[in-house]
Amino acid sequence: MKGCPMSQSPLTLEAFQQHIRDRYYQTDRAHGTPGTFLWFIEEVGELATALHGENRDELEGEFADGLAWLCTLANINDVDLAAAVAKKYLRGPGPEGHK
Amino acid sequence: MKGCPMSQSPLTLEAFQQHIRDRYYQTDRAHGTPGTFLWFIEEVGELATALHGENRDELEGEFADGLAWLCTLANINDVDLAAAVAKKYLRGPGPEGHK
Repeated sequence: MKGCPMSQSPLTLEAFQQHIRDRYYQTDRAHGTPGTFLWFIEEVGELATALHGENRDELEGEFADGLAWLCTLANINDVDLAAAVAKKYLRGPGPEGHK
Repeated sequence: MKGCPMSQSPLTLEAFQQHIRDRYYQTDRAHGTPGTFLWFIEEVGELATALHGENRDELEGEFADGLAWLCTLANINDVDLAAAVAKKYLRGPGPEGHK
């Protein structure tokens, strides 16, 4: 991974967003933002279902899907998630209280 | 950051999730999962609004908030996001087609 040549881990946010881009961008681009948002919300609903359940594998998978779809939405809108979170959360004190 | 001592960047997913834990866990834990999910959905709605708009700073900020709240939900449910995405997306071919 870029910037950390000594190790394949830990996973950087940039690398994961790029992985999702490499793997799915063409399909995601074709959906466009509204269509992709619909998929994202479907995953958010599945995350809610998993949060109600007792299956840890399912829960972890739904969190993974939620993040993957957030990366997809960012990719097709030319947003660098790592830069975005660095700007808002890692410079200065970050948002107060409940973010 | 753990595992990448040569550089403070790039940002690892683990480090960002931990940052959110360090900064907000006590408040997040008090909200519980349903209350936190409600905050998360509020941010998802704000992301939708920003996707309709033309303000890039606002859009980047809403993506950052969405990821921060996903980290919060993961934190209070003892889910390691980096491990979850590695398991589902980085081992083998990953989900086909639309994830």
